[in-house]
Amino acid sequence: MNHTQASSGTTYASSSTGPGIDAAKVAALAEETLDWRFKALPAAAQGLTVREYLAGRPALADLGTPLLTLDAGALDHNLSTMARWCAEAGVALAPHGKTTMAPALWQAQIEAGSHGITLANLPQLRVARAFGVDRIQLANTLLDPAGLGWLAAELDTDPGFAFTSWVDSADSVRLMDHALRAAGARRPVEVLVELGGPAGRTGARTVAEAVQVAEAVLAAPTLHLAGVGGYEGALAHDAGEQALATVRAYLRRLAELHRALTGRYESPRPLVTAGGSAYFDTVVEELKPLDDALVVIRAGAYLAHDDGFYRGISPLARGDGTPLRPALHGWARVVSHPEPDLSLLDAGKRDLPFDEGMPEPQRVRTASGVRSLAGTEARIRQLNDQHAFLVGAGEQAPVGAVVRLGLSHPCTAFDKWTTIPVLDDADSAEPRVVGLVRTYF
Amino acid sequence: MNHTQASSGTTYASSSTGPGIDAAKVAALAEETLDWRFKALPAAAQGLTVREYLAGRPALADLGTPLLTLDAGALDHNLSTMARWCAEAGVALAPHGKTTMAPALWQAQIEAGSHGITLANLPQLRVARAFGVDRIQLANTLLDPAGLGWLAAELDTDPGFAFTSWVDSADSVRLMDHALRAAGARRPVEVLVELGGPAGRTGARTVAEAVQVAEAVLAAPTLHLAGVGGYEGALAHDAGEQALATVRAYLRRLAELHRALTGRYESPRPLVTAGGSAYFDTVVEELKPLDDALVVIRAGAYLAHDDGFYRGISPLARGDGTPLRPALHGWARVVSHPEPDLSLLDAGKRDLPFDEGMPEPQRVRTASGVRSLAGTEARIRQLNDQHAFLVGAGEQAPVGAVVRLGLSHPCTAFDKWTTIPVLDDADSAEPRVVGLVRTYF
Repeated sequence: MNHTQASSGTTYASSSTGPGIDAAKVAALAEETLDWRFKALPAAAQGLTVREYLAGRPALADLGTPLLTLDAGALDHNLSTMARWCAEAGVALAPHGKTTMAPALWQAQIEAGSHGITLANLPQLRVARAFGVDRIQLANTLLDPAGLGWLAAELDTDPGFAFTSWVDSADSVRLMDHALRAAGARRPVEVLVELGGPAGRTGARTVAEAVQVAEAVLAAPTLHLAGVGGYEGALAHDAGEQALATVRAYLRRLAELHRALTGRYESPRPLVTAGGSAYFDTVVEELKPLDDALVVIRAGAYLAHDDGFYRGISPLARGDGTPLRPALHGWARVVSHPEPDLSLLDAGKRDLPFDEGMPEPQRVRTASGVRSLAGTEARIRQLNDQHAFLVGAGEQAPVGAVVRLGLSHPCTAFDKWTTIPVLDDADSAEPRVVGLVRTYF
Repeated sequence: MNHTQASSGTTYASSSTGPGIDAAKVAALAEETLDWRFKALPAAAQGLTVREYLAGRPALADLGTPLLTLDAGALDHNLSTMARWCAEAGVALAPHGKTTMAPALWQAQIEAGSHGITLANLPQLRVARAFGVDRIQLANTLLDPAGLGWLAAELDTDPGFAFTSWVDSADSVRLMDHALRAAGARRPVEVLVELGGPAGRTGARTVAEAVQVAEAVLAAPTLHLAGVGGYEGALAHDAGEQALATVRAYLRRLAELHRALTGRYESPRPLVTAGGSAYFDTVVEELKPLDDALVVIRAGAYLAHDDGFYRGISPLARGDGTPLRPALHGWARVVSHPEPDLSLLDAGKRDLPFDEGMPEPQRVRTASGVRSLAGTEARIRQLNDQHAFLVGAGEQAPVGAVVRLGLSHPCTAFDKWTTIPVLDDADSAEPRVVGLVRTYF
């Protein structure tokens, strides 16, 4: 394609400063009026703006159940821990914004030094653009013709918008090129060739196939070959020796693909990207030596972390670094205690994540105070739509008690809440609400 | 308690006409402006009101993916089929509104002759009250003190608001009474004593225990004993002989509880309620003979029905009645076809239900037309957060194709979408959008 044409806009890898986000639009969220539309907020908040409600420094105990909260200290700790880790490793972080879909948290990630924001699909991209995020990696292929038309208009009207997406087949290249031409796109769309692995998710299965995809990109006037990437997390699901070896072998093939394309990229500094929240240490070990490329990792779950899947697999838990802290908690009230070893909580599948393990009962608050459930047999046996089955807590979970739950898998926690209160300290006896995070799913 | 006091407001069972809903507030949803906040809507809808957007009669093909839709004909069919079935059976229907959390669908259910709307928790109750629903059964125990204060204010300021909730222990009665007194409640809260079963969910485990709960209610000045109820669906999960026998035995104990309390109720016509979407035929067989009571079933999933769990278990599928029709469908685009027998779709755990079985690939639309996948080996093997793994479709699901998916479990489908397009006919070659259903989760 035509390099003169490509130079008409900012490229994804071209800037050394962080991306922009429209701070005024994020700040304006504090003026939103709270009402019955927000299940996290009590009737006492009805009619107040977010700012007015927070000015009263509400106590957690004044909020209803079920509830999902974030912990301010844990968020700060995780932001700075991950920023420091990436700086020391010498890689850029474009956190996966799909985890939270919360512009205020994206802003915090950008302020902590992120290189860009990663997203998964067109609706998410539209949310980010509505808040002025101007350096976005779509870790997916966008084939919707109307969506590509919208994207072309965004790129052509905002020369400062740096965008890249993925492509893994010549067929996709053809469909994208066709839709972008039909839309009259003037600025080429930067794409990364995606490498996958056998039994994995998306991505060309071999380096040779991926090179063919790159050649199709080079031949497409509306696309611009900007790098290579993929998602090692689709190839493994634990931190065992076999899983880590699979991840490492994949990353070596990704490096091989990059070397095969060196000299053919249509951008001055190609991008090489991998790294969800589970294996970013191995990603750095294998990809950092590619010093002609900008290496970008895309962890998203690190910010909220968890008390389940990521607690077990995070490189910062497995290695000797500073561990992340769980920022997310569920809170639910015992509404029934019909058998000595069964209490029913008022939170269910519509409130809490359950796809990577059940919530973990951690502490219980009754009229006589807060009591830890650590070291007890308490566990959530099952979730229904609107109920959780707590066993092993016996008389420690009487009717009316409020149980704090550790969670597994931030991605399926955030998407169940439009507003998430931020607590000053989820471990204190009387947590206070110091923020409200708005999500858009 | 004092019967004079109780007469100051409408009771749940007292009226023979249907409940009210504020039609103007439901109609006002058509004036909401569409934008990037609604993931179901394409960029072309940006800035239009719902009414303006629908006036263009958009084609399904103009909407993006992933998408969840409703079918207008199936909704109408299910509404009238269930209304006719209940009328013939001589029972009232208070459909569980938590399934859809959609005021426009509640309105349709009310217009089809429903006795009331059932809900599961306080946030849902606040949504219903915001739309003026005035006969509500909370099929759960409400213990949140602030929530009980809000409820007391709603009852005291609107004498036409008929409300009942459940209680299953003397401890709950004590907590409710305490909170209602503290809130200065003037009108007593009608409650039903909930009977459960061994290894079930909430509900007193024996008739004798339930009678004791009723006695606690009778002694509580702020509560009013209005009937008995429970949820047989918590005791079984299929339509096998053993499951049906368990359900029947439970219902017989519920009838026994009702007979034990006859003469002691604090309302002229007691309520007896059971019946989710799976066993309402057995509920009618066992409870209809209680002719001194208003028998209310609470099915919620019947309206959308499904192509999974409810397709297998609905009494209207098992019996010789008119079967319900699936109204819900997912739509997702093939964004990658990296192996001969694997295609990746752009819909995942955040878009489609997965807790009662995987989505079912039903048809595929490519540039050459629509093709049925019925009778093929096509199936969804797995969902990730934002992807579905389609196997068994081979070259029938090339990159760019759009796949229609049958779904299992409406409750975990609706809650993933704030706006759901209603199609004129999901089976047609070119479906048109004729409505947009707004949900509040």
